[in-house]
Amino acid sequence: MSILVVGSVAFDSVRTPFGERDRILGGSATYFSVAASFFTHVRIVAVVGEDFGPADQAVFLEREIDTSDLERVPGRSFHWSGEYGYDLNVARTRDTQLNVFADFKPKLSDRARETPYLFLGNIQPQLQVEVRDQVAAKLVAADTMNYWINNTPHDLREMLGHIDLLVINDAEAREISKEANLVRAAREILSMGPKRLVVKRGEYGAAMFTRDSYFATPAYPLEEVFDPTGAGDSFAGGFMGYLAATNAIDEATFRRAIIYGSVMASFTVEEFGCERMRRLTHNEINGRFRELRAFSNFDEAQMPPF
Amino acid sequence: MSILVVGSVAFDSVRTPFGERDRILGGSATYFSVAASFFTHVRIVAVVGEDFGPADQAVFLEREIDTSDLERVPGRSFHWSGEYGYDLNVARTRDTQLNVFADFKPKLSDRARETPYLFLGNIQPQLQVEVRDQVAAKLVAADTMNYWINNTPHDLREMLGHIDLLVINDAEAREISKEANLVRAAREILSMGPKRLVVKRGEYGAAMFTRDSYFATPAYPLEEVFDPTGAGDSFAGGFMGYLAATNAIDEATFRRAIIYGSVMASFTVEEFGCERMRRLTHNEINGRFRELRAFSNFDEAQMPPF
Repeated sequence: MSILVVGSVAFDSVRTPFGERDRILGGSATYFSVAASFFTHVRIVAVVGEDFGPADQAVFLEREIDTSDLERVPGRSFHWSGEYGYDLNVARTRDTQLNVFADFKPKLSDRARETPYLFLGNIQPQLQVEVRDQVAAKLVAADTMNYWINNTPHDLREMLGHIDLLVINDAEAREISKEANLVRAAREILSMGPKRLVVKRGEYGAAMFTRDSYFATPAYPLEEVFDPTGAGDSFAGGFMGYLAATNAIDEATFRRAIIYGSVMASFTVEEFGCERMRRLTHNEINGRFRELRAFSNFDEAQMPPF
Repeated sequence: MSILVVGSVAFDSVRTPFGERDRILGGSATYFSVAASFFTHVRIVAVVGEDFGPADQAVFLEREIDTSDLERVPGRSFHWSGEYGYDLNVARTRDTQLNVFADFKPKLSDRARETPYLFLGNIQPQLQVEVRDQVAAKLVAADTMNYWINNTPHDLREMLGHIDLLVINDAEAREISKEANLVRAAREILSMGPKRLVVKRGEYGAAMFTRDSYFATPAYPLEEVFDPTGAGDSFAGGFMGYLAATNAIDEATFRRAIIYGSVMASFTVEEFGCERMRRLTHNEINGRFRELRAFSNFDEAQMPPF
């Protein structure tokens, strides 16, 4: 089964306490599609400018990601510049230049419209709905961000009514629901449309809610986090990639998908950009899956203590 | 097997967004001993003033906690006054009156010195060492806080050399080690003495480190957190209580102890002070243990996706 992802392809200039890189390939759709490509076939819908060259194209080609819906237009690609402090939790944006992304109108080929798994990356909620309505998908998931939550709340609510699954971080869950308590926030969001909510919690792991189930897992413990950029999108890519690869929609599959998402995020943050994912192997991915299982496993006592 | 706990018995005046209480029974040794008493026999070493009355004594008696080493002296008991905002994560201290606790010199009876499990609650590190040296314990665990980390770093380092196990929160782990990354922080702390480190992460759960093992668990998900006071001490009480009750020191037992600690903390925060624990049943405790297992359980796929 294949996945269609719509989102941004960007160049990022990133500074962390451990080094810096200028204009490396990034963007939500890039991280998502590279992560998902380890599990299934991926088709990307995005827009780039004339500065997107053969070396950038190679990142998609080597992962056999279908770029026939990747639009090239005159002008420069989306450029984000930011930095992280020692705690690595919050990015400080130094500069954002939307460039060709400002006028992005996703154009879908006929084959794109038949993709069974759809991920609506973080773009205007209105565009997310337009794309969603064109695709005859079996499962539709979306991400969003504080900008849309605060500036287009009506469109965001509309979008939530069109998707099966929302994948956001805990701050966003609190902002959408206006609830400080995450369990109450999840209940509120589930009443707005999605049947399932995945909450990314960075170094603390992830949680997943439906109306009648709950799952939580710690993150893979890393001694060196080098660059957190793309962690959330890689998580979503691993998560959706596993779902599409197994083509099963049941709680046990969703739980394993969360673990594969956590694993992909853990690799991404070990180096700048997509560098670590570009030389990742299936053995390494399954190795961390098994480690995460060992790290979170506990048994019931043979006898209760009382 | 029985536990000896040394720490504070206090009166707390607490204000939360959901209500307030004046001078309710609290203190680290109180929460710890009430939580541990559901698992095993507990003996408390602490000091109280003349304001500690029969109604306060009843909290210990009804849980069959041995108060023969609870010293009563002229003056007033330790009094803490604080409040929590809507996110409930950080307490703002309005007032601290140490009163009789300022001159606390733990006095141990002969029977106290023979207790096999010892928990050194959050008091001066020097006093923790003095108590530790008097007890022929099989397992010694300790807590501490930012005040001692910053004001008596030398004494704290000395204390760490005298214990088997440290139970602290993640901010304290980062302060002791001067490392932002928790995995590196844990490695650093384990090099200072303790063979095992338990890190409490509030709503995110808990993690446990040794030199060659790692375990992490999410917290029990609560829709209503009423008063976070005592959560960490109740966690430590459930954790140590289970260890003493089973009297086994292996990784599987430590992991189940973490879950019982999380369960006890989850009950404590549902109401003010010890109110919820005072009417808690063993069935309720085991029920949440099983729920936490269901919430964090995932299987390996029958086949890897690639």
